[in-house]
Amino acid sequence: MGHGVDSPPKIVTGSHGYVLEDVPHLIDYIPDLATYPNPLQDNPAYSVVKQYFVNMDDTVAQKVCECALLMSEIRKLASGGLTSQEILIVVHKDSPRETHFRRAGPRQKVYFESDEVHACIVTCGGLCPGLNTVIREIVCGLYDMYGVRKILGIEGGYSGFYSRNTISLTPKVVNDIHKRGGTILGTSRGGHDTSKIVDSIQDRGINQVYIIGGDGTQKGASVIFKEMRRRGLKVAIAGIPKTIDNDIAVIDKSFGFDTAVEEAQRAINAAHVEAESMENGIGIVKLMGRYSGFIAMYATLASRDVDCCLIPESPFYLEGHGGVYEFIERRLKENGHMVIVIAEGAGQDLLLSEGINSVNQKDASGNKVLLDVGLWLSQKIKDHFTRRRKVVMNLKYIDPTYMIRAVPSNASDNVYCTLLAHSALHGAMAGYTGFTVGPVNGRHAYIPFHIKSSVVLSLDHQGQDFLRSNLGLGMQMELVGDKDLISILIPG
Amino acid sequence: MGHGVDSPPKIVTGSHGYVLEDVPHLIDYIPDLATYPNPLQDNPAYSVVKQYFVNMDDTVAQKVCECALLMSEIRKLASGGLTSQEILIVVHKDSPRETHFRRAGPRQKVYFESDEVHACIVTCGGLCPGLNTVIREIVCGLYDMYGVRKILGIEGGYSGFYSRNTISLTPKVVNDIHKRGGTILGTSRGGHDTSKIVDSIQDRGINQVYIIGGDGTQKGASVIFKEMRRRGLKVAIAGIPKTIDNDIAVIDKSFGFDTAVEEAQRAINAAHVEAESMENGIGIVKLMGRYSGFIAMYATLASRDVDCCLIPESPFYLEGHGGVYEFIERRLKENGHMVIVIAEGAGQDLLLSEGINSVNQKDASGNKVLLDVGLWLSQKIKDHFTRRRKVVMNLKYIDPTYMIRAVPSNASDNVYCTLLAHSALHGAMAGYTGFTVGPVNGRHAYIPFHIKSSVVLSLDHQGQDFLRSNLGLGMQMELVGDKDLISILIPG
Amino acid sequence: MGHGVDSPPKIVTGSHGYVLEDVPHLIDYIPDLATYPNPLQDNPAYSVVKQYFVNMDDTVAQKVCECALLMSEIRKLASGGLTSQEILIVVHKDSPRETHFRRAGPRQKVYFESDEVHACIVTCGGLCPGLNTVIREIVCGLYDMYGVRKILGIEGGYSGFYSRNTISLTPKVVNDIHKRGGTILGTSRGGHDTSKIVDSIQDRGINQVYIIGGDGTQKGASVIFKEMRRRGLKVAIAGIPKTIDNDIAVIDKSFGFDTAVEEAQRAINAAHVEAESMENGIGIVKLMGRYSGFIAMYATLASRDVDCCLIPESPFYLEGHGGVYEFIERRLKENGHMVIVIAEGAGQDLLLSEGINSVNQKDASGNKVLLDVGLWLSQKIKDHFTRRRKVVMNLKYIDPTYMIRAVPSNASDNVYCTLLAHSALHGAMAGYTGFTVGPVNGRHAYIPFHIKSSVVLSLDHQGQDFLRSNLGLGMQMELVGDKDLISILIPG
Amino acid sequence: MGHGVDSPPKIVTGSHGYVLEDVPHLIDYIPDLATYPNPLQDNPAYSVVKQYFVNMDDTVAQKVCECALLMSEIRKLASGGLTSQEILIVVHKDSPRETHFRRAGPRQKVYFESDEVHACIVTCGGLCPGLNTVIREIVCGLYDMYGVRKILGIEGGYSGFYSRNTISLTPKVVNDIHKRGGTILGTSRGGHDTSKIVDSIQDRGINQVYIIGGDGTQKGASVIFKEMRRRGLKVAIAGIPKTIDNDIAVIDKSFGFDTAVEEAQRAINAAHVEAESMENGIGIVKLMGRYSGFIAMYATLASRDVDCCLIPESPFYLEGHGGVYEFIERRLKENGHMVIVIAEGAGQDLLLSEGINSVNQKDASGNKVLLDVGLWLSQKIKDHFTRRRKVVMNLKYIDPTYMIRAVPSNASDNVYCTLLAHSALHGAMAGYTGFTVGPVNGRHAYIPFHIKSSVVLSLDHQGQDFLRSNLGLGMQMELVGDKDLISILIPG
Repeated sequence: MGHGVDSPPKIVTGSHGYVLEDVPHLIDYIPDLATYPNPLQDNPAYSVVKQYFVNMDDTVAQKVCECALLMSEIRKLASGGLTSQEILIVVHKDSPRETHFRRAGPRQKVYFESDEVHACIVTCGGLCPGLNTVIREIVCGLYDMYGVRKILGIEGGYSGFYSRNTISLTPKVVNDIHKRGGTILGTSRGGHDTSKIVDSIQDRGINQVYIIGGDGTQKGASVIFKEMRRRGLKVAIAGIPKTIDNDIAVIDKSFGFDTAVEEAQRAINAAHVEAESMENGIGIVKLMGRYSGFIAMYATLASRDVDCCLIPESPFYLEGHGGVYEFIERRLKENGHMVIVIAEGAGQDLLLSEGINSVNQKDASGNKVLLDVGLWLSQKIKDHFTRRRKVVMNLKYIDPTYMIRAVPSNASDNVYCTLLAHSALHGAMAGYTGFTVGPVNGRHAYIPFHIKSSVVLSLDHQGQDFLRSNLGLGMQMELVGDKDLISILIPG
Repeated sequence: MGHGVDSPPKIVTGSHGYVLEDVPHLIDYIPDLATYPNPLQDNPAYSVVKQYFVNMDDTVAQKVCECALLMSEIRKLASGGLTSQEILIVVHKDSPRETHFRRAGPRQKVYFESDEVHACIVTCGGLCPGLNTVIREIVCGLYDMYGVRKILGIEGGYSGFYSRNTISLTPKVVNDIHKRGGTILGTSRGGHDTSKIVDSIQDRGINQVYIIGGDGTQKGASVIFKEMRRRGLKVAIAGIPKTIDNDIAVIDKSFGFDTAVEEAQRAINAAHVEAESMENGIGIVKLMGRYSGFIAMYATLASRDVDCCLIPESPFYLEGHGGVYEFIERRLKENGHMVIVIAEGAGQDLLLSEGINSVNQKDASGNKVLLDVGLWLSQKIKDHFTRRRKVVMNLKYIDPTYMIRAVPSNASDNVYCTLLAHSALHGAMAGYTGFTVGPVNGRHAYIPFHIKSSVVLSLDHQGQDFLRSNLGLGMQMELVGDKDLISILIPG
Repeated sequence: MGHGVDSPPKIVTGSHGYVLEDVPHLIDYIPDLATYPNPLQDNPAYSVVKQYFVNMDDTVAQKVCECALLMSEIRKLASGGLTSQEILIVVHKDSPRETHFRRAGPRQKVYFESDEVHACIVTCGGLCPGLNTVIREIVCGLYDMYGVRKILGIEGGYSGFYSRNTISLTPKVVNDIHKRGGTILGTSRGGHDTSKIVDSIQDRGINQVYIIGGDGTQKGASVIFKEMRRRGLKVAIAGIPKTIDNDIAVIDKSFGFDTAVEEAQRAINAAHVEAESMENGIGIVKLMGRYSGFIAMYATLASRDVDCCLIPESPFYLEGHGGVYEFIERRLKENGHMVIVIAEGAGQDLLLSEGINSVNQKDASGNKVLLDVGLWLSQKIKDHFTRRRKVVMNLKYIDPTYMIRAVPSNASDNVYCTLLAHSALHGAMAGYTGFTVGPVNGRHAYIPFHIKSSVVLSLDHQGQDFLRSNLGLGMQMELVGDKDLISILIPG
Repeated sequence: MGHGVDSPPKIVTGSHGYVLEDVPHLIDYIPDLATYPNPLQDNPAYSVVKQYFVNMDDTVAQKVCECALLMSEIRKLASGGLTSQEILIVVHKDSPRETHFRRAGPRQKVYFESDEVHACIVTCGGLCPGLNTVIREIVCGLYDMYGVRKILGIEGGYSGFYSRNTISLTPKVVNDIHKRGGTILGTSRGGHDTSKIVDSIQDRGINQVYIIGGDGTQKGASVIFKEMRRRGLKVAIAGIPKTIDNDIAVIDKSFGFDTAVEEAQRAINAAHVEAESMENGIGIVKLMGRYSGFIAMYATLASRDVDCCLIPESPFYLEGHGGVYEFIERRLKENGHMVIVIAEGAGQDLLLSEGINSVNQKDASGNKVLLDVGLWLSQKIKDHFTRRRKVVMNLKYIDPTYMIRAVPSNASDNVYCTLLAHSALHGAMAGYTGFTVGPVNGRHAYIPFHIKSSVVLSLDHQGQDFLRSNLGLGMQMELVGDKDLISILIPG
């Protein structure tokens, strides 16, 4: 029942590549915990519903494709003339492994009594549309579904655990917050002092911790979980993953993404209007995405006004054949103006190769003069065309990052944030801990912290269909391994 | 040649419930049609991509669940101790059938040469966000990907084929139209005179027909297809299904839906502000949905301000225990105000039982005084509380229908409309005909016309997870057969 | 002391038509009131400014035009050859009288000490964009400028004075409310029980009352003021006029008007999109304006898509030459579609003449089925064209009233609401009472309550220039007496 | 009559300081021009209106104030006991001069026949909301009111006259353009080659030239007018002044200003949300305004979230008592976060004194790295607090300039742009030339080109009232001469 920090991931393997990446549970290290019937079963809505609670065995498979492969193998065999009611299937041991995750949702039995729960919520890292919706729905969900009355907000991120006062959260306090951008709790980067945080949680008697934040934050949550386990405390740690860049490997999309793509249209429209109104007008828009071009790509696809989209997944170069300058020259000749979207993480190799060292400047928030690939690209293009080529050119550079991050979530993200919040609290009430939540293949699931660290980009089905369908429009796409990497150059 | 009007659906069955609902192809009734290499393969983007074209055998399964079921059976067997490389699986012949559809996307070979294509586009029925995006992307896609130069717009719906002039569509003409609501082609209801339409198509030398419209329109498209086949004409008929209500059985969602849910938030917000500002304030918002409550439900879930959502799938009553009056009384006592969302198709049985006969009034466009369930419900509530119960009540009724229908599509719908348009034109170029397009289980597919007629409502996975998760908030959900039917009563 | 309910308006007359419509002052009925230096003079900002405080004699003239007339007379005389340093001017005694109002703004001396003030705020009547901004700025202004710490919110309109608890208002409480629609205090119609209200004010020790509401509310405020004066209480009563219709005679415009015109564009756009997409499409939009067509007219002028605007100030008829049917027929023939904007108060005479009696239905809030001129006109047009003339016609009727009323105020209205709030509190601090605030000829002024009762519509200069300029576009304008009455029929 | 370039401004002086800054007329240099009755008088709308045409003598006074002064003098005299029907007024010869301008609007007689008119429209300089509305209304106004059929669009600014083709403008072409940002004609800076432009106008037979642009553009228009006069051509030159900064001396406000203030709220809101969510969060927003802080000031006043507004009219300094650092330190201590708005032209003296030379960089469009006062201020603040003071600080800098410039005009600006367009064409039809249009004291007028060169900032009445009223909130205001100069430091 090992309490140590080094206890391994809970991985359940089966034959034929079946792997369940299970999440920890309080009973892993606290035996003999009492269980209680889920208070939802006394809910009037409950009686009319069949199969309301999630079955303990219910899991979500990460990939449909193997399943589909298998199906087609079955079909081939079947069509081979087997007429009996049984068929024989060969599943090779070395077939690609199928990773499963525990299904999210309410359980028959819970490990906390309503008046025993003392929950807290903290938001960490940069802003993202939907933070307030997640906060609101954790509060309202715990309150309305599980009768929880003690919910604290930790102010200002991780450091708020030990350096600031808490605020009491009730449905009334959070009633309208989903219509405002930002986070009512405040946020910060860093400030993760594990022992101070865990001491604070222990001293305040908190037993459910909801941590909303990005990759670094979730790593911090993992450390907190391990210390909880080491101390043997009955405290459930649940993470809600936040990354507006959508660069989380396992889950389908991150909250705020839809809103960001929608809001980015304003900037792209402005760039388009500016470019279209000027001779050789070029509008450049930098969008979020340190390691992933999802926002840039979807915003590009949605706009229909963008000529070129540069993303981190696909290297590019400026000079020579196949380079960006050549493409610009061609588009200006054909169309008189153009719009370029660039993800903030694109072309970082080019900046480094020019000796623009971003490492030393990492800490200076707001100071992106040297780091800013958008400013760099703008300057490069102007140098090339105006100074070297003596071409009149009107370049307008737009960086809408903070204006996008700060808007409230749209309808689609509101639905999504609510689900994430509910998944988290159903999991914590059911005694799971050390997990984050998120949809896997369209089904909400509990994912152990360690999974998050390896970021593997993959397009969803619609994205893949889109690329396939649009390739003829001039998109350059490379399929490398599991990844669908693209840089999009759309003529017309 | 001609196969007759009565030729049956192309259904390919396999063992174990495998069914391919195939779509017709021009070669079904025109043998010896020449094929050409897809011009996309000369596209510079093509060379860098592996597996660009859709394999001829590629299909999309309608239901993942059976596949998952099967998988879990395999797993059970496997965990049962079978150690060999082979396992035995029992698949009962009477297991639920698995319906497949042909995968959408570009094919290796096409049945039209670029300069041979003479396409036309028509929009029919009511407005829906995204119509102009679909038109734009059919035009730009045919033009840029397949080098097609002759594309006509049919004005004013089906009757435009024989009663109005056509307009020439080029990328320049359609360049900005996706930022405007409505349809630049105009639309109308009815006007489907098959022989006049087919004569017009034949006389003008049109050989690709793109028909954007709802259920009735797609039925009309099916009849046109059959007549084309009867006459043995090389004319591909492709439908793009339009129904803002999202009430199409097979496909995952209809275009414009996301936009409608987003735009509905304005009306719900207004109802909430009005209700909140008045003593016993009740805001009632009627949303689209003749047979389906999807918009009403998602708009409700996204808003977090709605107390009660009434939809066609779930009957309700006013008086007595469990009735709407009782719920209103309770919510006003608890909270002082409330918001009700009602789908336009909800409660029609109640109106009928009161002798309000809507049948005779169907044709009078715009005239919804008697039919309007929102006005009816508002009057009923006022009568009950103000006249009978002598309770002061401030009821505000909002019908945002036309304001929602007429907005341009949002970013998410723009991406989606583009995919639908591209799927349609890839299919037509590949010689398929008599099909509509749409995503099935997240993969875009070609669906034969006859499938559309049976409307079976089903929530997507997220919707199901949502309901499961929110049930504790007081939603009343019934799972009846394949359907997830709900009426939502959310306290708090 | 007490001057009695019947004390006349404070009108100061001079020769030559000069009239000062003065507002009451606490010293009118409480002699020997102490004065204090305005705390603003200790404000660091104060020292650098010359002429900060409003001079006691400063007034605002209602009409520039007489002044201009006079000037031109002077000029004529001057050009007549008078060469001396003096000229003789004839001012006829019967020249139009020039009404002046006391200038709004901070005074050198105030009649309340900061810690003596106990203010309250109440909002009455229907919603209007900007209510929360006015509340916010009264609170912040009293707090920051005058050091007032006791400010109460009266909930739910007049009746809240005696039937509900108050809420304490601080800058923190009102910090974000200007970004929300509605009123955080709640509102109601009626409920004006003078003695209960005045008792409540007296019992609670309130000495400044800010009343935000329309015509009826301001009449109520006047009665409260008179009772205060009768009882000899040192209580300043200040009104902030609210009427989204902009139908206040004296002041230049009412708050929320700009926002309403802006928001109305959505509905007009939707009507235009719907009309344009259909054969013989007619979009009808009903806008606010019981006695005034200002919103309808400005929304029409701003949109450039409206063909016909019907307003209360200008009667219209349906049948025959010059009637609405004739105009519709012509526009549909010319243009294929059209948009009609109608103010809610237009054509009430026609409804009455048809025996549609609206009087009895006044009290049923929300119940406008019979009263609704938009529904009536829609039905009439359909009857005429569809039934009688057998013309296919697609009519879409949009009533965006509640969606307009409930939005937050825009930037322009935020500036305006702030000024109104500040004017009110500077006046109350200076001991004025029984007044409302508002700009007169572009200068903010204090206006006695009795002025509000006579509603005389007048366009501002821009409106007049606009009409003159657009007349050629087919607007029908009649200049009757002091009024600029229009019904707008714009071709093209 | 003089044709020379050096003919002086047409200034008509009268006694007592009366000055009419008249505009040139074609008959000034082309005698015996035929006149025609205004076709508007055959308009059906005409017959019902009295006093439709502007009287030839009608002028607009720049300042009401002298008029008001005079009035009060009259009153003093009157109250002095003069009982006769005549009074004697002393008007000192050295009283401040009163500048008048010719009233805009349609005239009884026009100097062009409908089918004789050959108009052209050109847009120059940077983008501004409303350009397309002005274009649309010139086209529709000439077409519908004066029956003009030949209207050309000059593409790409001044240089388009001689280097590009024209496009034909009709009501159909411009129908929807007011709903799009930018200018459909394209624009550019510079390119003013007088003789080429005038040759092109002469060669094409154009006789009405509408020039939309800023200060430099209007100077160019003046030169074109002088050359036209020198050549004795019957060509009317009309300017529509464009400057989003609102820095035109004479006219009340420039088009696009309202829209810009509204749109700026998005950026300020984002800055506020970012600042509020972080410890010691500072949001800095740079807004347009090279020589004027109007947009910055109004956006600040409208937002109610801004703590400090820095504008060109009022110098500021960073270090020491009364400096910006001190203010920031105080606000962060008091409130934990703050928002700063800075106009782009503010603090340029400080940049210069640091040796940051902006002069050499003027031509590189888009390249504002060194010039950008917002980036400079951000860096300065970070240096001061983070490096020198070791204070943790989260600074977010937002430059929404291009996103503001590119939006379509709002409802209020649409009304305004329409009036400007109509004033211009009524003037040109009436034979006036060498003028720009704009409201003076609320009345639209014709202003000779030479007036525009002297930029004198002045607040309108509401602005002045606002400042007076808000001074207590900590605004620092200096009234110097005719100017109302402010820098706003708002606590609370």
